[in-house]
Amino acid sequence: MATTQAPATRRLGRQTLAFEEPPVILAVAAVGGPMEGKGPLGSLLDEVEPDGLVGQKSWEMAEAYMLQRAVDLALTKASLQTSDIDFLVTGDLLNQLGASTFAGRMLDIPFFGIYGACSSWSEGLVLASALLDGGYAERVVVAVSSHHDAAERQFRYPTEFGVQRPPTSTWTVTGAGAAILARSGTGPRITHATAGRIVDIGEKDPMDLGSAMAPAAADTIAIHLKETGRQPGTYNAIITGDLGNVGKPILEELLVQQGYDCKQQLDDCGLHVYDQKKQDVHGGGSGCACSAVTFCGKIYPDLVQGKQGRVLLVSTGAMFSPTSYQQGESIPGIAYAVAIEGPAAMGGG
Amino acid sequence: MATTQAPATRRLGRQTLAFEEPPVILAVAAVGGPMEGKGPLGSLLDEVEPDGLVGQKSWEMAEAYMLQRAVDLALTKASLQTSDIDFLVTGDLLNQLGASTFAGRMLDIPFFGIYGACSSWSEGLVLASALLDGGYAERVVVAVSSHHDAAERQFRYPTEFGVQRPPTSTWTVTGAGAAILARSGTGPRITHATAGRIVDIGEKDPMDLGSAMAPAAADTIAIHLKETGRQPGTYNAIITGDLGNVGKPILEELLVQQGYDCKQQLDDCGLHVYDQKKQDVHGGGSGCACSAVTFCGKIYPDLVQGKQGRVLLVSTGAMFSPTSYQQGESIPGIAYAVAIEGPAAMGGG
Repeated sequence: MATTQAPATRRLGRQTLAFEEPPVILAVAAVGGPMEGKGPLGSLLDEVEPDGLVGQKSWEMAEAYMLQRAVDLALTKASLQTSDIDFLVTGDLLNQLGASTFAGRMLDIPFFGIYGACSSWSEGLVLASALLDGGYAERVVVAVSSHHDAAERQFRYPTEFGVQRPPTSTWTVTGAGAAILARSGTGPRITHATAGRIVDIGEKDPMDLGSAMAPAAADTIAIHLKETGRQPGTYNAIITGDLGNVGKPILEELLVQQGYDCKQQLDDCGLHVYDQKKQDVHGGGSGCACSAVTFCGKIYPDLVQGKQGRVLLVSTGAMFSPTSYQQGESIPGIAYAVAIEGPAAMGGG
Repeated sequence: MATTQAPATRRLGRQTLAFEEPPVILAVAAVGGPMEGKGPLGSLLDEVEPDGLVGQKSWEMAEAYMLQRAVDLALTKASLQTSDIDFLVTGDLLNQLGASTFAGRMLDIPFFGIYGACSSWSEGLVLASALLDGGYAERVVVAVSSHHDAAERQFRYPTEFGVQRPPTSTWTVTGAGAAILARSGTGPRITHATAGRIVDIGEKDPMDLGSAMAPAAADTIAIHLKETGRQPGTYNAIITGDLGNVGKPILEELLVQQGYDCKQQLDDCGLHVYDQKKQDVHGGGSGCACSAVTFCGKIYPDLVQGKQGRVLLVSTGAMFSPTSYQQGESIPGIAYAVAIEGPAAMGGG
């Protein structure tokens, strides 16, 4: 009954997975709502929905529709069908993964539901990469979504109330992103991934999630650099999910305290989705879709075209619920890091 | 930039993972509430809490405490510490994985949050097995929880209302289960796992989840048998999570329609946790903890002691939310199957 196996070889340290046959990202697709269409990423999205309901009965089902649509568009770009995909790894912010579930019902692809709040995008990339590199699948789709109006009424106040938002608050992105990962093919590759820990510094303001998540991002990035033995300069960019203009400077400082000066590399998806001057989003964009649409609309094409060689994508999540907040709990954060290389980095190390 | 890898070898068909170095379940632990302590599994639980609050301020934090406690007890039984564990794969029913998050905060183990409703237990076993067999970790803990009062007020009515429950309703188990999986060691082994699809037959009654989940269980079991080429008799038992006495006969019939007579093998965790005659639970037990405490309290010891040789554990989930239900949506189901062998089955096939 006892078994003795060789030690695990596809990892570095405790938290970092090192892929022997780095999975390829064959194709990606991003869908956004009307406000996302008007932002700087608008022209880079594969589809911009003219209104937030997208012809559905509710914002929640609109989100499920956009999630399914992103998967369909990515499949079309890769000339694949749902039957070519082994697993759908998916998450969203709705209670009980409402968008993922109903998108999964429409897509009929074997399903792994995950929840890492707004870090779900990179959490999904980690698990999908392990399923592929480990030899359990040929192709896996990772897809996540969020919806501003559905999220606001679930987490804070219904948008119809017109509650004034403080400057630290971020704007949940309405949209969805999908990536098709495969064992073989052409495209940027995921070489390493670092899973996050729950980090909670006691921050309690649901209108300031950037401050709550920054320590988790710092923890994951520092562990990633330590376990891989890499320096910040190994990456053209280290791109967090949705810290915004409040959380990003905190992250910079926390990393300096841990001995890593990443100022040159640090960037945040939340600062790309909207025009910070013209669009009234305060701290920046947020939500599962924030890092997903920024990756699919901008980072992935930059990797393919050689504008970026190697990036570390670090989607960040605030793991609170309205219940935990109302019960006086602080807001735990988490972050997952994924190292991705385009042709400009190939051969490097 | 193009890569060509050998096809994925650790799988059978599209949905079934076949582990080359089957992960070992080193130790398990189950914690239950007062009502679970009075049921037939009571004496088999590692700890029975004298009241549902367990000294916490809320049912939600009581659930988080029990989840953490189950992990701690399992670690003690295996003479391990949290620092010996690479990843915690965990899920629960609370909005935004409230119990998992706050247990994860206390445990400080790198964290993968998953959501498969009451199927989260076997979903977690699938993903943890892939992380181990794939070579990404030495030891992974899978842990899930549920809490009757926390679940009722979130999904249906606060228990203080005293709403009359129909005979088809099940009773969400208050408790938590944890299993320590490892690449090497002594214990039952996970040889195969089959991921589920979202299956929705249009059932809309949140007081009859057994009927909503039975088709998903049938789908996953039939696919598992087809992809592995196994017959129902390969297993001493095929044990679903929480179909209860309403869903189990539906599953039996659906499997017969697909050419599999599993009547001799089929069992359901929901029929083990409570005394169906003396405890007023109607359809049986349910919740993430239902299959977890039944596995940890009964099935695992049976495997270790050779009372069972090979079992297929099929935790079942109803992927609805109060929002989707109130918006008129039907209840999608999902099920994950995990094939586990004790010494009595070793050498067989």
